[in-house]
Amino acid sequence: MKAAIFRGGDIVVGEVPEPKPSAGQVLVKTLACGICGSDLHAAKHAPHMVAMSKRLPGRVPMDLSRDIVFGHEFCCEVLDYGSDTERRLKPGARAVSMPIMPMGETRTTVGYSNDYPGGYAERMVLAAPLLLEVPNGLSAEHAALTEPLAVGIHAVEKAALTRDDVSLVVGCGPVGLAAIVGLRLKGARPIIAADFSPKRRELAAKMGADIVIDPAREQPYAKLPPGRRAVIFECVGVPGLLQQVFEAAPRDARVVVAGVCMEPDRIEPFFGIVKELSLQFVLGYTPEEFARCLRLLAEGQVDATALITGKVGLEGVKNAFDELANPERHTKILVEPWR
Amino acid sequence: MKAAIFRGGDIVVGEVPEPKPSAGQVLVKTLACGICGSDLHAAKHAPHMVAMSKRLPGRVPMDLSRDIVFGHEFCCEVLDYGSDTERRLKPGARAVSMPIMPMGETRTTVGYSNDYPGGYAERMVLAAPLLLEVPNGLSAEHAALTEPLAVGIHAVEKAALTRDDVSLVVGCGPVGLAAIVGLRLKGARPIIAADFSPKRRELAAKMGADIVIDPAREQPYAKLPPGRRAVIFECVGVPGLLQQVFEAAPRDARVVVAGVCMEPDRIEPFFGIVKELSLQFVLGYTPEEFARCLRLLAEGQVDATALITGKVGLEGVKNAFDELANPERHTKILVEPWR
Repeated sequence: MKAAIFRGGDIVVGEVPEPKPSAGQVLVKTLACGICGSDLHAAKHAPHMVAMSKRLPGRVPMDLSRDIVFGHEFCCEVLDYGSDTERRLKPGARAVSMPIMPMGETRTTVGYSNDYPGGYAERMVLAAPLLLEVPNGLSAEHAALTEPLAVGIHAVEKAALTRDDVSLVVGCGPVGLAAIVGLRLKGARPIIAADFSPKRRELAAKMGADIVIDPAREQPYAKLPPGRRAVIFECVGVPGLLQQVFEAAPRDARVVVAGVCMEPDRIEPFFGIVKELSLQFVLGYTPEEFARCLRLLAEGQVDATALITGKVGLEGVKNAFDELANPERHTKILVEPWR
Repeated sequence: MKAAIFRGGDIVVGEVPEPKPSAGQVLVKTLACGICGSDLHAAKHAPHMVAMSKRLPGRVPMDLSRDIVFGHEFCCEVLDYGSDTERRLKPGARAVSMPIMPMGETRTTVGYSNDYPGGYAERMVLAAPLLLEVPNGLSAEHAALTEPLAVGIHAVEKAALTRDDVSLVVGCGPVGLAAIVGLRLKGARPIIAADFSPKRRELAAKMGADIVIDPAREQPYAKLPPGRRAVIFECVGVPGLLQQVFEAAPRDARVVVAGVCMEPDRIEPFFGIVKELSLQFVLGYTPEEFARCLRLLAEGQVDATALITGKVGLEGVKNAFDELANPERHTKILVEPWR
């Protein structure tokens, strides 16, 4: 089948073996798959990512000498089942799924695996029990936002907000915007959001931020009302950002680290210590949070249309990776492999 | 009056101006004052410590061109009062106090100030409202442990332990030992403790650790029972330690950072992210925790005798700073300026 393949450090369109569903698995057709910042990072720093994975037990690291097909934010259509499945959804049904493939004691991520191509391919093999049917009427492209939305919703859950907390979202890319959606749904007010990009600030306001700051002109932390605990969502994930938060955060702040910084970072613990900061690193979501996000999208509680800024076929993936570097132009680009 | 003075980067015994209590202040005689690891650090890295303080708002940094008298873990005897004081404790009464001097909008720490000499001096001026009378029968040397004990008790409070948590104390110096005391008083079981020093491991067991590990022979983290959340007390405070915790901690662990690392540190956030670790940096204690520690000592709930490994006069301070580098020989050395 056709796929946009990560091969030899580059993204190329080509053929990969047709996936075949084994026991407990389902074969699906990819309808839409979002390009995630983690994919961009993986393409740029693949050897480092693999080296890190190898230092964690219970992980199957990618073999970079073999093909990999990225894409873990997908909506798909059921085609066929392997053995030992309940065949819950009929062929033709549209579905989303957490991009997880259980493998005995361990598990792998669909889209970061040599064996399980992700959504930048015409078809995928998924774990049948994880399929969630897309409610009638929700488009495939909006359903594909379930995964990135769940990342933000999960970050907000892990923040363990109390009524007196005031949230500041630092960085309004897809993760930060999803956190803003989660905060709005929680009724947390005010929501302060900061981003250097005018387009992203506009989206932050659209998603529900009450106060939107350009850090080039104003210090976002100065907007945090004294006397209320600050909860800072770090949604950038580049080296140096954590130290910036350490220095600027008010005393007793809670920092939710949702940005995925894959490189070593330098901090001065002294600032965390004297302010008694707390940090919660977050990743992914629970199955319940994932399912809830699909419902939120189906109920129209999230302005999905505003978040999707482009759609490409497999031939457009490589260029889309470059385009996503410009925050003015793009938030979420969807890959439609059938195009 | 006589004091062990931090002057020109060295500890020298000499004369400093006699302190005079202003409004709201009390003049006291120092009976006993513990040497804290932070004092050792301040003596070694004073310019860096000052540079860091200057980067924090609301702090009065030390002027290293002027004399400083360290010492913030003290028991004292009331001598005289300034104006505007309630004269709650009679002259001759023994007292402890948080080493804090309120100064209008801001405040300074007694013992890290050019204006308020700490307990390595014959006399001190303290904030009268903060004095707590030492209950009858508790010796001055044991009462002087109130402050370092409060640091550990506070760390345990900030851990927000639940019944299912299992604690691992990394580093069994004074802070780690105080954390073990706090954990034991909370009824948290089992308490796992790790230190390279046999003497400190012996003390850890004495203070209530159930499982005591030599990290040179065994991996302490392997002792954490699966299925229960790990709460790791980082009580070392040197660069690299946090990264070590990041790599070794189990998923969802809570890390209480009680070690005061004053230098820049390098972490790989990736490990915190994939394990969804939470970090709580801690410093100091609340007034309630401080008062509670004095009661705990007075009630004999802490084996204070075991913690005190040496007593020196002002002439012995400089040598004591060197001696404390050897964990086999010393845990807490008390300065008795009247000797």
